[in-house]
Amino acid sequence: MLKIFVAKGACSLASHIALEESGVAYEARRLDLARGDQQSPDYLALNPKARVPTLVTDRGALTETPAILAFVAQTVPQARLAPLDDPFTFAELQSVLSYLCSTVHVAHSHGRRGYRWADDPAALEAMKAKVPETMAACFGLIETSLFRGPWVMGEAYTVADPYLFTLATWLEGDRVDPARFPKVLDHRNRMAERPAVKHVLAFYEG
Amino acid sequence: MLKIFVAKGACSLASHIALEESGVAYEARRLDLARGDQQSPDYLALNPKARVPTLVTDRGALTETPAILAFVAQTVPQARLAPLDDPFTFAELQSVLSYLCSTVHVAHSHGRRGYRWADDPAALEAMKAKVPETMAACFGLIETSLFRGPWVMGEAYTVADPYLFTLATWLEGDRVDPARFPKVLDHRNRMAERPAVKHVLAFYEG
Repeated sequence: MLKIFVAKGACSLASHIALEESGVAYEARRLDLARGDQQSPDYLALNPKARVPTLVTDRGALTETPAILAFVAQTVPQARLAPLDDPFTFAELQSVLSYLCSTVHVAHSHGRRGYRWADDPAALEAMKAKVPETMAACFGLIETSLFRGPWVMGEAYTVADPYLFTLATWLEGDRVDPARFPKVLDHRNRMAERPAVKHVLAFYEG
Repeated sequence: MLKIFVAKGACSLASHIALEESGVAYEARRLDLARGDQQSPDYLALNPKARVPTLVTDRGALTETPAILAFVAQTVPQARLAPLDDPFTFAELQSVLSYLCSTVHVAHSHGRRGYRWADDPAALEAMKAKVPETMAACFGLIETSLFRGPWVMGEAYTVADPYLFTLATWLEGDRVDPARFPKVLDHRNRMAERPAVKHVLAFYEG
């Protein structure tokens, strides 16, 4: 059975929701990042990057959200979580996944994990100060250029939806008013009503 | 015919090489980023992110290197640039593409484009100072955990090879001695000897 390692508040929520939406059998294991669970020898053997998510399959472990999301969509085709038969629309989906990973998530990370890119405490403060601006710029681009509606990629729900939902839940924490992005906010509200999303969010309570 | 917008020294080199290796007909258009070509209205209509690469197809434009690389592999299957018939090994490839994009390229960008994440000039200097450490950490992980040999993913040459090659050409500029990573350096040297790579690199001369 598939096993996904996740953490509360982390981007692993996207893969967790995608697995739940797919209907495949899986087990979720929650790591406490503050306690350093991701640095245990057992976990590092699965994922030497010491991050979440990690998806453990009977063939081995997979890391990186865009790769895991496409894998879930490809291995559970009946769930129709990606346009698998059309390389162009699949590439459009992958482009959004890549942007969320390499630009939006990275912008967010400068708020709390700036130590990845600088040592000077004043630099960390300078990075933190700019997060509302960079996150708003990212979500401005999503609102005006990327989001098609009613779902991220248009008429069909895809793995891009739990990923955007996950990053959109970070907006208030990044001092950005989500009301500035009506399509994104409406999408977030509709996502929160989906049974699969409610089920997954309940896993992190307590 | 496919058209790829590229810039000298940019990550677009990876997609450019992948197209050349695939054997598909394409045209490369070089932008001068210092001159601001990426901010022209025509280009922004194709790619509102104002970055390279952009791959223009008869169906529309695609952005983000991991998405373009997978698209080239999927639409030119006879070039065998990705394990298209096995979702697990395809996901392993995609995981490497995602890591190169969201972690390695991002680490590099803090050297010259730190203004994306902070305004304070002292913070930009602090980011620049840490680039040798972060890039060395990334390539240490690649050398010890990700690189399989003789090619990135093992016996088969894939689109991960031009991507790693591209980022590995940045090491000296990021004040990292590539000799610290013998497998990566050997790969870079072998890549530089491939006719397709020589042909593409000649495009940027002058």
